[in-house]
Amino acid sequence: MKSEFLQAMSKAANSVCVVTTDGIGGKAGMTVSAMTSVSVDTPRPSLLVCIHGQASACDAIRTNRAFCANLLAEDQAAISDSFAGRTGKKGAERFDCASWHAAVTGSPVLDNPLAAFDCTLVHDILVGSHRIFVGEVEAVRVAETGAPLIYFDRQYARATPQG
Amino acid sequence: MKSEFLQAMSKAANSVCVVTTDGIGGKAGMTVSAMTSVSVDTPRPSLLVCIHGQASACDAIRTNRAFCANLLAEDQAAISDSFAGRTGKKGAERFDCASWHAAVTGSPVLDNPLAAFDCTLVHDILVGSHRIFVGEVEAVRVAETGAPLIYFDRQYARATPQG
Repeated sequence: MKSEFLQAMSKAANSVCVVTTDGIGGKAGMTVSAMTSVSVDTPRPSLLVCIHGQASACDAIRTNRAFCANLLAEDQAAISDSFAGRTGKKGAERFDCASWHAAVTGSPVLDNPLAAFDCTLVHDILVGSHRIFVGEVEAVRVAETGAPLIYFDRQYARATPQG
Repeated sequence: MKSEFLQAMSKAANSVCVVTTDGIGGKAGMTVSAMTSVSVDTPRPSLLVCIHGQASACDAIRTNRAFCANLLAEDQAAISDSFAGRTGKKGAERFDCASWHAAVTGSPVLDNPLAAFDCTLVHDILVGSHRIFVGEVEAVRVAETGAPLIYFDRQYARATPQG
């Protein structure tokens, strides 16, 4: 079932985000392809990310009670690689691959993301190996142009309009 | 904040699923672009979908305690349109657009999805206007070839490999 599930999930195309956090729980970040909008309405818009419970960013987010979901543009695969551990860098060294500033919650936000959602943690649900973190959005950034970096069929891809 | 959030979220590219259910709570289905893998591990793989609390499928899933996430292929936009209400059909009439059979949980599964995940409902979390449904996967199907239907920048798109 496990390999069948992974094979079937590899057919879904997902945008790539770097989820970051900073505060008394430490500075951490990781690449995530499981970010999705939850609610637009009251009290504020919300989204969720799913993170492995043993990732260092997981503990940091739980302590800091905040995270920023940085949506990567299609030319930012190197940032994804760094935060997915593919460059061998660990912890805060991963941030060396790009320029950042502090968002409202203190979480690092890319200087040039395709979009960024700075969130306060409002729900934290353990499901098997992972935690679902639901964040209420404190601040939003969005680039005027650009397309997202996509992960599909175990490789990077881009979205092109149909028709 | 609301329009800014929607504009920023439109930059994320998401695979399109039709989430279906059937049982004593009735037969229902709806198009969803918020489906994501949660955990591969113990006890079984899991995924989540986010559905508006006032959608008829929402009540049906809560009563039936089961749903199937049918991942659409890039040539199945007509199925997405039907279950997004764009053809004007309501309720069980929406299923007329394609061929289905009953999955293990009783939920309708497409005869030819790109992938399908038949799930038992294990978590149901209310966040603002929406519910996050976490399902444990009972059965999986996956097509040997094909690419997903993607929704990005408020239109359908396809994923093409980078490089």
